[in-house]
Amino acid sequence: MGERLLVTYHFSSTPAQAAARALGIALEQSTELPAGAEPERVHALGLPGRVEELSPLDGQPGAYAARISFPLELVEAGGITALATVLFGNTSMQADVTLAGAELPAALLAGYAGPSFGSAGLRAKLGAALGPLTCTALKPVGVGVDELAALAGRFARAGIHLIKDDHGFLDQAYAPFAERVAACQAAVVAASAQAGERSLYVPHISGGLDAMRCRVDLCLALGIEAVMVAPMVVGLPAFEAIAGEAAAAGLLLLAHPALSGATRMAPDFLLGRVFRLLGADAVIFVNHGGRFGTPPATCAALADNLRSEWGALKRALPVPAGGMTPARVGEMVRFYGAEVVLLVSGALYPADAALDERARAFVQAARTAPVQQASALEGTRTA
Amino acid sequence: MGERLLVTYHFSSTPAQAAARALGIALEQSTELPAGAEPERVHALGLPGRVEELSPLDGQPGAYAARISFPLELVEAGGITALATVLFGNTSMQADVTLAGAELPAALLAGYAGPSFGSAGLRAKLGAALGPLTCTALKPVGVGVDELAALAGRFARAGIHLIKDDHGFLDQAYAPFAERVAACQAAVVAASAQAGERSLYVPHISGGLDAMRCRVDLCLALGIEAVMVAPMVVGLPAFEAIAGEAAAAGLLLLAHPALSGATRMAPDFLLGRVFRLLGADAVIFVNHGGRFGTPPATCAALADNLRSEWGALKRALPVPAGGMTPARVGEMVRFYGAEVVLLVSGALYPADAALDERARAFVQAARTAPVQQASALEGTRTA
Repeated sequence: MGERLLVTYHFSSTPAQAAARALGIALEQSTELPAGAEPERVHALGLPGRVEELSPLDGQPGAYAARISFPLELVEAGGITALATVLFGNTSMQADVTLAGAELPAALLAGYAGPSFGSAGLRAKLGAALGPLTCTALKPVGVGVDELAALAGRFARAGIHLIKDDHGFLDQAYAPFAERVAACQAAVVAASAQAGERSLYVPHISGGLDAMRCRVDLCLALGIEAVMVAPMVVGLPAFEAIAGEAAAAGLLLLAHPALSGATRMAPDFLLGRVFRLLGADAVIFVNHGGRFGTPPATCAALADNLRSEWGALKRALPVPAGGMTPARVGEMVRFYGAEVVLLVSGALYPADAALDERARAFVQAARTAPVQQASALEGTRTA
Repeated sequence: MGERLLVTYHFSSTPAQAAARALGIALEQSTELPAGAEPERVHALGLPGRVEELSPLDGQPGAYAARISFPLELVEAGGITALATVLFGNTSMQADVTLAGAELPAALLAGYAGPSFGSAGLRAKLGAALGPLTCTALKPVGVGVDELAALAGRFARAGIHLIKDDHGFLDQAYAPFAERVAACQAAVVAASAQAGERSLYVPHISGGLDAMRCRVDLCLALGIEAVMVAPMVVGLPAFEAIAGEAAAAGLLLLAHPALSGATRMAPDFLLGRVFRLLGADAVIFVNHGGRFGTPPATCAALADNLRSEWGALKRALPVPAGGMTPARVGEMVRFYGAEVVLLVSGALYPADAALDERARAFVQAARTAPVQQASALEGTRTA
């Protein structure tokens, strides 16, 4: 049997029922039969799933953590569809159960490539070896191609490293993909040359896999070097496919968290581990203290999951976002350290005459933020 | 501007904050900018999103429902990735917000084909014009090809209409897809001919889109007439693609709910509307009173969303499941009426000598369950 996939679930229970609930999850995620109704022969494969550990969750009365193991035979060679099925397929429909995390044995992890550039590759591309990186978004939906290109140029002249599409930008008639992406790329390349600083335009790639492939091809033809994909919108298997193809073509990959909140999977696991596993070089997530309620400890764990040593996988960069402002740059750098991409977008708008100044102030704040030797994350490692 | 997409969100709030929360969602799902920071030009497109109605949720203190409208220009021609982005992209990350439902204007609905067979087409294929249909699952993971084929034959001889794979069956080494599917199909065809009753074998198709396409081709070459896909596991855009291709090839499509629980989208909407919209002819969901906690009213609304008149879309069949037993057949037929596929699987196991008898008893219960003229669902319509 050898190594097994070890998954942690959190759930609510009375003390008397907890062991039966944990066993129920182990069966639900494997044989889907009452205990003992499986043929004995499957025992040789290490089936059904096995409860390895069951313990009350500290400080949460009535809440339990179960660590349940499954044989690798269930998930080998199936990619993310197989893994997601075993991790949370049917149990996702039990409203009190959360997928808290999972430990992938080396044999399973070796089947995934992870980020193709990673933090070091992204920094090399930008010529920015040290310090926090900067990112902003072109906004809003509804604006036409010329205006977006002008905006992209202004952000590049301000020295912002990554200038990404809003994730609502698809292929709408008011700003068709092909035309829009060509114009924004040209504007960023021109402004970047003028400013003497490297900026990358990062278009958003969405749609079905066939449409995404066409869009990636177009990006490559335009000399674009990085793209953004929302894994939960396009589906994890499509993300897995496009990540592999982007890596082969030398494209950097930024992951967007749209739809990721509604999964009842711990964000530090889904965004920090799964997105990295599948190839994201940098992962946007909602920071604490913004428009969303992610607790600081979750943000720290997520960032740590992206950046810590994990098998042979490259380190990815955290991109905390969601209502961030230039005024928070210092605090964010204290919290995340310098291995971070700071994403500030809404606070740089409206696109009036003062936008350039706000964008420059953001870049300046990032450049001058004091970076401590040891980041605030030490001691929060979850992996 | 014309017709708009109308989306209902539920969220928690104080009375004083409710209007600001609703406006926040309208902005988050469209311009992603503070109110007024968007250029005036986008107003001509009907942007940003607009709060059309805000009301307290009956009987839930501190809970509100907001109906928010968006211009169709945002989602036209983008398929399900565009629709999902506008419906719940970023707002999914606000933990208290639920996507309660949406009304698709005719112009948008017309872009989706829905089920290609629907209830009537499925019944025609089975030669079963009236009464509840029956379904079971081959189990468990870990069992080899010969045993599964033998089991499939036994279920077909018992007269069960749809004999589906467990959704954990992928392409594992102990039961490789090509070999397994060929053997099960042959067993069902032979047994079906012998029994004089029509049974269909329904293999589970998973993996990335490329792998799914290969598997669909193989199924077609084997004369298979129906397949099962888990839309949330393969991703909605891949499901959309494969559904269109299955329809073109004349394959019936059964949807499996794996991973659908963890979405914070109302199941009656996601499974009842979205899965049907994308082409499911029949949709498995977790019934009340089984291993999962779906309330009866949600089950009724889900079934109604699948079966009620909805633009030009065919009616799909509900497949209540999750710990059902032959003893519950009468109650389920009283609740759902005869337009239903009854899925009983675990309760038919273990695969001992008595399995045939249990399977026949299940079929017999379905055949003889009294069907009332009017189903219990009347009065629960949500669409």
